[in-house]
Amino acid sequence: MRVNRFDAAALDAVDPMAFVRERFVIPEGLVYLDGNSLGMLPKGVAERVEDVIRRQWGNDLIRSWNTHGWMDAPRRVGDRIASLIGAQAGEVIVADSTSVNIYKLLMAACRMRPGRSVIVTEEGNFPSDRYLIASVAEGLGLTVRVAKTGHIADALQDLDDRVAVASFSHADYRTGALHDIKAVTSACHAVGALTMWDLAHTAGVLDLSLTDANVDFAVGCGYKFLNGGPGAPSFLYVAERHQAMFEQPLTGWLGHAKPFAMSEVYEPSAGIGRAVVGTPSMLSLVALEAALDVFDGVSMAAVRAKSIALTDFMIDCAADQNLGLSVATPLVARERSSHVSFRHLNGFEIVQALFARGVVGDFREPDIMRLGLSPLYTRFVDVWDAVSHLGDVLRTESWRDPAYSIRGTVT
Amino acid sequence: MRVNRFDAAALDAVDPMAFVRERFVIPEGLVYLDGNSLGMLPKGVAERVEDVIRRQWGNDLIRSWNTHGWMDAPRRVGDRIASLIGAQAGEVIVADSTSVNIYKLLMAACRMRPGRSVIVTEEGNFPSDRYLIASVAEGLGLTVRVAKTGHIADALQDLDDRVAVASFSHADYRTGALHDIKAVTSACHAVGALTMWDLAHTAGVLDLSLTDANVDFAVGCGYKFLNGGPGAPSFLYVAERHQAMFEQPLTGWLGHAKPFAMSEVYEPSAGIGRAVVGTPSMLSLVALEAALDVFDGVSMAAVRAKSIALTDFMIDCAADQNLGLSVATPLVARERSSHVSFRHLNGFEIVQALFARGVVGDFREPDIMRLGLSPLYTRFVDVWDAVSHLGDVLRTESWRDPAYSIRGTVT
Repeated sequence: MRVNRFDAAALDAVDPMAFVRERFVIPEGLVYLDGNSLGMLPKGVAERVEDVIRRQWGNDLIRSWNTHGWMDAPRRVGDRIASLIGAQAGEVIVADSTSVNIYKLLMAACRMRPGRSVIVTEEGNFPSDRYLIASVAEGLGLTVRVAKTGHIADALQDLDDRVAVASFSHADYRTGALHDIKAVTSACHAVGALTMWDLAHTAGVLDLSLTDANVDFAVGCGYKFLNGGPGAPSFLYVAERHQAMFEQPLTGWLGHAKPFAMSEVYEPSAGIGRAVVGTPSMLSLVALEAALDVFDGVSMAAVRAKSIALTDFMIDCAADQNLGLSVATPLVARERSSHVSFRHLNGFEIVQALFARGVVGDFREPDIMRLGLSPLYTRFVDVWDAVSHLGDVLRTESWRDPAYSIRGTVT
Repeated sequence: MRVNRFDAAALDAVDPMAFVRERFVIPEGLVYLDGNSLGMLPKGVAERVEDVIRRQWGNDLIRSWNTHGWMDAPRRVGDRIASLIGAQAGEVIVADSTSVNIYKLLMAACRMRPGRSVIVTEEGNFPSDRYLIASVAEGLGLTVRVAKTGHIADALQDLDDRVAVASFSHADYRTGALHDIKAVTSACHAVGALTMWDLAHTAGVLDLSLTDANVDFAVGCGYKFLNGGPGAPSFLYVAERHQAMFEQPLTGWLGHAKPFAMSEVYEPSAGIGRAVVGTPSMLSLVALEAALDVFDGVSMAAVRAKSIALTDFMIDCAADQNLGLSVATPLVARERSSHVSFRHLNGFEIVQALFARGVVGDFREPDIMRLGLSPLYTRFVDVWDAVSHLGDVLRTESWRDPAYSIRGTVT
C-alpha cells in the first residue's frame, strides 16, 4: 500500500503543532529541510532588530546598555533557552560562537580534574569539537582517546580514573543518532570524569532535561533549531553545582564581577556570568531573543512528539517508495534527533538536484544526504514532497546533470 | 578674549569634513560625545540589516552563505578595515569580540617565542587586555611585567631577551594618550619581542600605518570609532610575514583550510583565515560592513586633522572658561587620540548632570570624565556647547543633586 499525499495532508490536518508554522516566514513553494543548518526566519524578528537599530542604538545610544536591557541580555536569553533544555535559570548564558564556548568549557573542566590525563571523545563528534579537544589537550599536556561510535562505555572503563573530561555531541551531525545523555553522563561520573555535551542538533527539538541527566557542561547552537539567524550567538550551560569552581581562560572584562570598576586583577563574576568574555553582539543576540518567541506556549514534549512523527513518516515514505537508499539514521525513534539521513555515493549531486526542484537539504561528507525536519514548521506534506522528489531524482537519474556536481563553499 | 559659539560655528562652516555628518542619524538636540564607547548610527545600516534578514535569511535561507557572500564577509570587511589602519589586504579579518581576539593573538605570539618567559604590558592598558595577558601567562607558565606608564623602554631594556611579547593599548582608554606605535614596536623588536597592539581607541580616527610601524599583531573594536553598532564584531591583524607561523588555540571549524571536508584533523587555513573560529554573527557583521560606508571618499589624513582640531578646540574652550579642571589628556596634539578627559573627584556625578542637559560623555574610575570627539560627526559647536554646559554644572554645582549619584551598570 502506497502512502500518498492525501495521507500526509491528513496528518497535517490533525497535527496539534500545525499552528506554530504560522509564526514563520515561509517562502512560497519551498520545501525547506535544512533547519538543522539554518532555521527559518520567525515573524517579528526583522521588526525587533529594526527597533534596536533605529530607536535603541540610533536614538538612545550608549544608555541603551542600561535602559533597554542590553547588559542583561546574555543572561536573560540564556534563561529562556534554559527552559527549553531542562536547565535551571542561571545555568545558561548566551555568548560567542559554539566553538569558542567549547574551548572555554573544556579548559575549565580539565582544570577541575587536575592529575587526570585524558579527554575522551568519539569518532562521530563534530569536527570543530574534535579540533578544539585536540587543541585543549595539546595546551594542557593531555591525551585524547577517540572512542569508536557505540563504544564509549568500553573507552571509559579502560581508562578509569585517568579520564578528566568526556565530550560528545548529543546527536551525531551526520546520522542524527542520539546518545543516551543520562546513561553516558552517569558512566562518565562513575569514573570521576566531567561531561561536556554539544547540543547543536538537539536543543529546540528534544524534550531534554539537563538537570535530570545530571550534565556538567553543555554548549549549543543558536541558529539551527532555535532559529536565531545566521551565526546567531551560541549558548553554554554550567551546572549550578560547578559554577563557583568554574574558571575559563578567556578572562574578558564582561566576565568580571565588576566590569566598570576597571580593576587591575580579574575577579570572576559570581555564577554563570563568568562565562561571558567581551561585549555581546547585540543585533545578533536580539534576533535570537525575538526568534525564541516561536516557542511561546509550545511544550517541548509536543515538539519531540512531532519530531518523532515527522522522522518516522519520512522513513516510512522512503521505504514505501523503494528508494533503495541506506538509511543512516536510527530506525528506533527514541534513538534519533530531528533529521533523517540517507547514504548515497553521489549524495552531493542528488542534494543539488533536489535543490533545483525546490527541496533544500544538505550533504555531508562522505555520502550523507541530510534532511532536517523542524517540528515547528515542517509539515507532513513537505516530507512527502521531499521523498517524492528524491524518488524522481533517483529513478530518472537526473542528478547526473553535470551542473549538479559544481561545489560551492557551503553545501 | 572669550571663545564664543560664533567662533565654533565659523570653524564648522569651513570644516572640509562637515559633509560626513550627513551620513549619520543624529538625534535632535543631543550633544553626543561618547562615540569612543558606541559610535552613532550611520544611515543605511538599518536598511542593509533588514535586507539581510528578510530577503537573504528569510527567503534565500542557507544558500545565502554562498550567494550573498556571507562566507567571505569576515575577510571582505577585514580588507575594508585594513585600508583604514594602513594594513594590506589579507592582513585583517573580522571575528569574535576584541577580548577573544586578544587571547588568540597573545597565545599565538607567545608560542612563536619559545624559551622566552615574560609578557610585558603597561599600567594604562585596558583591564580586559590586562586580564587576558594574566590568563595567557598563567596558562603558558610565563610571568607578566607591568611597566609604569611612560617607562616601557626601561622595562624592555631590563628584560632583554626574556621578553616574548609586549602588549599595549595604542591609546590609553582613560587619558587618550598615544604610544608612539612605531618607536615602541621598534624597541620591542630590538629585544626580539613580538608586539600586540590594541587599537580600540585609535582605529578610525588616526592616520595609522601598521605596515610602516612594522606591527606584528593587533586587535581593534568595531563599535567605537568604526560605528558598527552595539557589540559589533572585532577585527584582528596579523602581519603577512607571520601568517604561516601563526597558530592560535581556538581551532574552530571555520578556521580550517577546508571546513566542509569535515576532516578529523585540524589543518589551518592559509593566511589570515586561520584566525576565524566559529560561524560569524552575520547580522552584526553586516551592520559593521554597512557602517564602514561612511568612510567612503574620506581620507584618514583628513579624519586625523579634524580630530586634532576638535580636541585642540575642546582644550582651548576649557582653558578659556577657567574650569579649574586638570586635563588628563596630553596637551601636545600628536600625543593624543580622539577624546579629551578631565579629572574631578565627582566626575561621575558631573557626567550625570551633563547627561541631564543633553550632553553625553562617560566616566571612568577613579576620576576621569571622558568626552569623545568623533571626527566624522562631532561639530565644533558641539564641543563649545559641551564645555559651556560643563562650566555651568561646575559653577552652579548642580552635580550635587543626589539624583546624579545613582550608579547604573554602564556609566
